[in-house]
Amino acid sequence: MKKIGIVGGVGWPSTIEYYKSICTLSQSYWEKQGHSRPLPTPEIVIESLNMNFTVNNRGSAELGSWNKWDQYFKTALEKLEANGAELLLIASATPHTRLAQISSSVTVPVISIYEAIGKHCQFLGVRNLLVLGTLPTMSSSAFIDGVSKYDLNVFYPSSENSHDRVVGIIDELYHNITDGSLESIDAIVRENLTSANQDNFAVCLGCTELPIAFGTLSVQSDFHVGGITYLNSTVIHSQHVFEACLV
Amino acid sequence: MKKIGIVGGVGWPSTIEYYKSICTLSQSYWEKQGHSRPLPTPEIVIESLNMNFTVNNRGSAELGSWNKWDQYFKTALEKLEANGAELLLIASATPHTRLAQISSSVTVPVISIYEAIGKHCQFLGVRNLLVLGTLPTMSSSAFIDGVSKYDLNVFYPSSENSHDRVVGIIDELYHNITDGSLESIDAIVRENLTSANQDNFAVCLGCTELPIAFGTLSVQSDFHVGGITYLNSTVIHSQHVFEACLV
Repeated sequence: MKKIGIVGGVGWPSTIEYYKSICTLSQSYWEKQGHSRPLPTPEIVIESLNMNFTVNNRGSAELGSWNKWDQYFKTALEKLEANGAELLLIASATPHTRLAQISSSVTVPVISIYEAIGKHCQFLGVRNLLVLGTLPTMSSSAFIDGVSKYDLNVFYPSSENSHDRVVGIIDELYHNITDGSLESIDAIVRENLTSANQDNFAVCLGCTELPIAFGTLSVQSDFHVGGITYLNSTVIHSQHVFEACLV
Repeated sequence: MKKIGIVGGVGWPSTIEYYKSICTLSQSYWEKQGHSRPLPTPEIVIESLNMNFTVNNRGSAELGSWNKWDQYFKTALEKLEANGAELLLIASATPHTRLAQISSSVTVPVISIYEAIGKHCQFLGVRNLLVLGTLPTMSSSAFIDGVSKYDLNVFYPSSENSHDRVVGIIDELYHNITDGSLESIDAIVRENLTSANQDNFAVCLGCTELPIAFGTLSVQSDFHVGGITYLNSTVIHSQHVFEACLV
């Protein structure tokens, strides 16, 4: 198996989800191959960053305002490569909005979360994808550009009010408040369903906190609640990375 | 805060416990200091090894039989230092039995689990310490040597039968079978309590699985069950590392 490099810490609970998911996938894979115990896991190197620094150094539309932020992620990716990682991932959806800027100096592949979700949608036959995530995710074209080759209509909640509600749900889930979160997600989804986008429709839970609202279902790559298909971006991204580490 | 380097993967659930514990300690610390959110965490680099390789390359009493194993851990520590880690730890009790052999080439401190436990025993006034752990831990003098300056009487379960029972409990807990584990631990402890060692007595849960038997108590560094004081080596080690990373 190839050595995997993970940029983590943004935030750390999400890093745990990715690491656990990759190790578990590896153990299941080798168990099915009849491998002896202890079941192998790939070698993994993790650079866990300080989220206080990343959040306080987010830029704006102004030219050069993202320099510090970009440099912090760029250095982390370079360190992982220098440490022998043969494929890289960022264990968080949000920094993917600046993937082009931060990954230009590394020579090993960075497995993009967009690419993983695009492929999974193709596999499921999804054509219309509502993405719920953090504000940077829902206000950038990066996701749409990242899945452009998959003939997928990606859209975000339409009103500023629903953006705020998604961010509010994420914040509550981060602080382990789950009461009513599933109902709130369901309401936002239904408000954004139209006759034009309801065919082959799915919702992408595009940040690590959102799947927590779905309890035990959250370990699956996709699941159905109230007639809606939900995609867990963390699990889909981890599966994609594990498959890449096997070849 | 200093950058922390962690040798992980042996096993990976234990790496998660350490990482989570250090990040949580950091967030509580900075919250008490009135720091703004998101609360800072130290930068952490983790080299997660493949436990299948480490277990299959364990040596014997034969000279040179540990060479491959030693080299694997030695290289991991060196990589962490090269990556800017200013203090190092191994997120598992068992490899500490060969700490001298694997840490000779790094120049930054490796924070030993034995040192952390020794200090914590001094703080609690513990003088007699029964250590439960994996077979390498319970059959090596490394633990005893590692706490020698703390005037602590360290001992292991006395019979081979009780060693086997401890190893059996660890294996069940690793596979998430918790039924009866607390009672089994209690029975082993009582069989090893004598009039000579019962004063200022505590039990060290010297491997990551054992605290699982104690449910929610397992997040604490020490706790009391049935009149016995138990020490959680993972939490104690993490606290010690976090304190070292602050200075």
